[in-house]
This record gives sequence, C-alpha cells and structure tokens, in this order.
Amino acid sequence: MELSAFRARLAETAQAVERELEGLLGFEAQPGESVRPKRLIEAIRYATLAGGKRLRPFLVVETARALGRTDRGPRRVGAAIECVHAYSLIHDDLPAMDDDDLRRGRPTAHRAFDEATAILAGDALQTLAFEILADPRTDPDAEIRVTLSAGLARAAGLAGMVGGQMLDIEAETAPAPFSREEIVGLQAMKTGALLRFSVEAGARLAGASPASGAALSSYGRAVGAAFQVADDLLDAEGDTATLGKRAGKDAGRRKATLVAALGLDGARRELARLIDEAGAALDAAGLGASADGLRAAAAFVAARNS
Amino acid sequence: MELSAFRARLAETAQAVERELEGLLGFEAQPGESVRPKRLIEAIRYATLAGGKRLRPFLVVETARALGRTDRGPRRVGAAIECVHAYSLIHDDLPAMDDDDLRRGRPTAHRAFDEATAILAGDALQTLAFEILADPRTDPDAEIRVTLSAGLARAAGLAGMVGGQMLDIEAETAPAPFSREEIVGLQAMKTGALLRFSVEAGARLAGASPASGAALSSYGRAVGAAFQVADDLLDAEGDTATLGKRAGKDAGRRKATLVAALGLDGARRELARLIDEAGAALDAAGLGASADGLRAAAAFVAARNS
Repeated sequence: MELSAFRARLAETAQAVERELEGLLGFEAQPGESVRPKRLIEAIRYATLAGGKRLRPFLVVETARALGRTDRGPRRVGAAIECVHAYSLIHDDLPAMDDDDLRRGRPTAHRAFDEATAILAGDALQTLAFEILADPRTDPDAEIRVTLSAGLARAAGLAGMVGGQMLDIEAETAPAPFSREEIVGLQAMKTGALLRFSVEAGARLAGASPASGAALSSYGRAVGAAFQVADDLLDAEGDTATLGKRAGKDAGRRKATLVAALGLDGARRELARLIDEAGAALDAAGLGASADGLRAAAAFVAARNS
Repeated sequence: MELSAFRARLAETAQAVERELEGLLGFEAQPGESVRPKRLIEAIRYATLAGGKRLRPFLVVETARALGRTDRGPRRVGAAIECVHAYSLIHDDLPAMDDDDLRRGRPTAHRAFDEATAILAGDALQTLAFEILADPRTDPDAEIRVTLSAGLARAAGLAGMVGGQMLDIEAETAPAPFSREEIVGLQAMKTGALLRFSVEAGARLAGASPASGAALSSYGRAVGAAFQVADDLLDAEGDTATLGKRAGKDAGRRKATLVAALGLDGARRELARLIDEAGAALDAAGLGASADGLRAAAAFVAARNS
C-alpha cells in the first residue's frame, strides 16, 4: 500500500473513532440527576477529543478488517483503548510526573483546568474504558467482552503501561543507567503493551485462529517496540515545533531510551530490524493482501519522524 | 445480632479478604521479566494492606452469604472493590486534592513515597480491580463477570465515585452553598455508589431473584447514604486522635455536608431515617434471619462514631 493510501485509511478510521468517542463522551443527563460534574466532563472531552492519529484504534480496526470484521465493535474497542491512552497522557503530563505544559500544541489538561480536575479526568477515563468493553454493544458475546477486559487490564496495569511509566521515572534517578535489556523491558511495558493489545483485541474480535492470533500478537509486539524506538529517535532529532511538545528533554533528564543505550545509529538499526520482524509476523499470519494496511502501519510507525 | 457478634463477623470477613488481597497483591515475577516496578508494588501494598474494617467487602460477602453463597467468589469481588476504594483514598489524599498527611494514623501514600508513585499506585489499583473481576476464578460465568465489571465501572466512574469527588471539590468554591438535594446527589455518587454496588454485587453473585435484588439494592442505597451522613457527623463531632486523620476540616473548608445543610440534629434525624429505610428494605427482600448480619451492618454504620 502506498503511503498516501495508508494515510487516507488512517485518517478515515480516526474520523470513525472520533465519532464513536464523541458519542461515548456525550454523557447525557440521567433521570433524577440532581448534580452533574460539568467541569470534569469538559476536561475529559478536552483531553480525549483533541484529535491525533488514533494509532491504537487503527490497529484494532485494521486487524479486525484484515480478518473480515468491519462492524462497529472494533471501533468501540479502539475508543476504549484510546480512553486509556488519553488517561495515561493526562497523568504523565502532571507536575509530579513529566511536568509538561504542552500536548499536541495545546496546554496540557492540568494547565487548561487544574491538577485535581486532571487527576480525576484521567481516573474517570480509565473507568470508562472498562465500561465500554463490558457493554453488549461492543460485542454480543460476554466471553469475548470479558477476555478483552482482562487483556486491557494486563496491558494497562502494573505489568504493562503503569508499571513501565514507574520504571521510566525511576530510571532518571537510578544509581546506574538501565541496561539495554532493561530498557527494552520497560518500553515493552510502557508503550508496547497497549499497542500490542490493540492488535490482539482486533484479532480476538474477528475470531482469529490460534496460529494467526499468535502471529498477529508478534506483529503487535514488534510494532509496539518500533513505536517507542521511533519516539526516542524523534526526541533526540526533532524540534519543539514539529513535536507540539518539548523536544530534547530525554537527554536532559537521563531518560531510559534506546538512543542512550545504543546511540543514534544503533537505534536506527534496531528500528529497521523491528519493522522486518513485524513484516515477517504478518507473513506468518497468512493474511495475504488483506494485511497490507497493517504492513503499511509498521512502516508508518518507523517513519513518523518524517 | 448483638453488636459484639457482628464485630466478630466483620473482623473474620476482613481477615479473609485480607488474605485474598495478600495473594492478589503478591505480584510474583513473570517468566522472562527483565525489570520490575518494585517501588510501585511497595506503594500499592502499603496503601491497600493497611487493615481497616473492609466494610465494602463485608457487604459483598454478607449479602452473598444471606442468599446462600459462601465460596471464594464474593471475597474476590470484595477485594476488587477494596482496590478501587484504596485507589480513591490515595488520589483523594494528594496535595492537589484534599492534601492529607495522615490516613488511618499513618503517613498517606504520597508522604510515605512521593506524589508520582502515589498517582501511579492509584492508577494500577483501579486497573487491578477490573483484572480481578475478569478472572474466571471470581466466577465461572462470563456473563456474571462482565455484569460485575459494568456495575463497578458505573459505580466508580463519572456518574459515581469520581464524579462525586469532583463535585465535592467544586462545592468548596461554588458561588452558593450546595442545596440539600445537591448534597444528597453528590454523596450518593462519591461514597454511596460503591457501597451500594457492593451489596448489588453480592446479590448478583448469589443469584438473587429480581425482587430480592431490587430490595437489596435499596438497602445498599440507604446504607451508602447513612455511611456518608455518619462520616459528616463524625467530622463535625470527632477529634483527630479517634479518627486517625485530621478532624473538623469540613467546616474549615466549606465542604458540602449534610451537617452544613441540616445542622447536627437534622443530620442525626436523617441518619435514623436512613437506617429505618435500610431495615425496611431488608424486610422486603424476604431473607428472614439470614439478613441479620446486614441488619447489624446498617446499625454499625450509623454508630461508627461511637
């Protein structure tokens, strides 16, 4: 698939997911409601409906599509994962964490509102993700819904995203720099787990065979790792205007990055290796041309600094 | 049931839930694990295994027992709800929220560790709650597990606990004091929703009939409301030594409390009315003597300032 065709499909999916999120974050008044947390709703919508590539939802939707499922279910699961992603950004930006003022070129949630509201908006978004997954409109089969819920919890929790974020913070003050193996491990948790789960969720929703599901999971692992290496390279090479957030901060704060462990060239080689691995996994999944979107997604992730 | 017998049963259930939590928060090393967020695990265990009455798990376990279910399932659901409760306390205590240094007579999580660790520990505890509910060891029936997950999400999210906490903060700086109706509404969200859900979860786990389930839900609503009125009275009348946390802070900060709206006597009358309502709901549930523990729980909640 050409990059321009891929971009069009990515944008189209992002729009469909945006509509799904718009509905889910509408929060209509309930009968008998005497009070309403309006400011919290505003903050949730501000942080979640800010656009973006919606890469995680794309991976859910595109994986399901490659396997033949094109209804609303994968979009809802994508929206749920996006809620978790949005919550993690709100909390990561807090003064006690990365202390960022800008996100996608706009003030971060705690700057646009206040810290308490930002903390609670993140909390509510995490809850909402599990509420969406539990809803029969996501999939009529309770077994599938509860499996997705378990998978999201593993990807988002202590052994995944949140655990990785903690290790990322600890790396800054650790007595010795993290080893390459430790950095790969923490990145697989911090950003890799949710990206990998996005692919796995799409496969589960579309009833992938065990062999195909395992191959797609390997694809998701490779894309997740590639995403983070590309992000590290982006920070080391980019500038604030392109990023919409502060650049060069990784080196300034001794962040655990693969650029720090392998150097720029080593990180670039690692990125190329991961993209090859993602492609080989798609071959193994036996999806043929229907996997072209996923193949292009891997290349896109690698090239997102251009 | 005599108060002493009730206290013994409450303590016994708390111990059983403590053992369950101890297992769930063991976080054994996984094969191939290269890094481990040790400090985060410490903070989670510090905040969750600090003892306490475990009232929410008691309501799950006791409701299920009244309906004849006594296996491990209700204890696991109780532990999941306790994870959500613990997460909410960690986040509520943060400097940007209630800014508390003490909780159950010990330093709060952000004082014992640091703010970033406390935020992430709360985040991971919320995730863990949904992971526990999704696990087949909680109940073999996926339909029940996913229903509990949906119920917990509603009770904990924007329309429940987190929304109520937001309104509670907003009340402090609102142009006019909240009306009685608004205070009742916010309290039903902030603390009521999770207590009510605890009862509903026990009923669902034990296969309550629709009529009995609805009556038990009313009981849970009344106990949840009574809990918060008793808490408001406790703050207005108690002292720091008894509470293990700072007393009298509500009045100093114009918190939305029923004592502020109704006065001490009015709040005491409202508490008595709610306990009557809880008892009447138990009568309507038709459980007979098997509901004695729940009946005693309502009285205990009302008397917890003594």
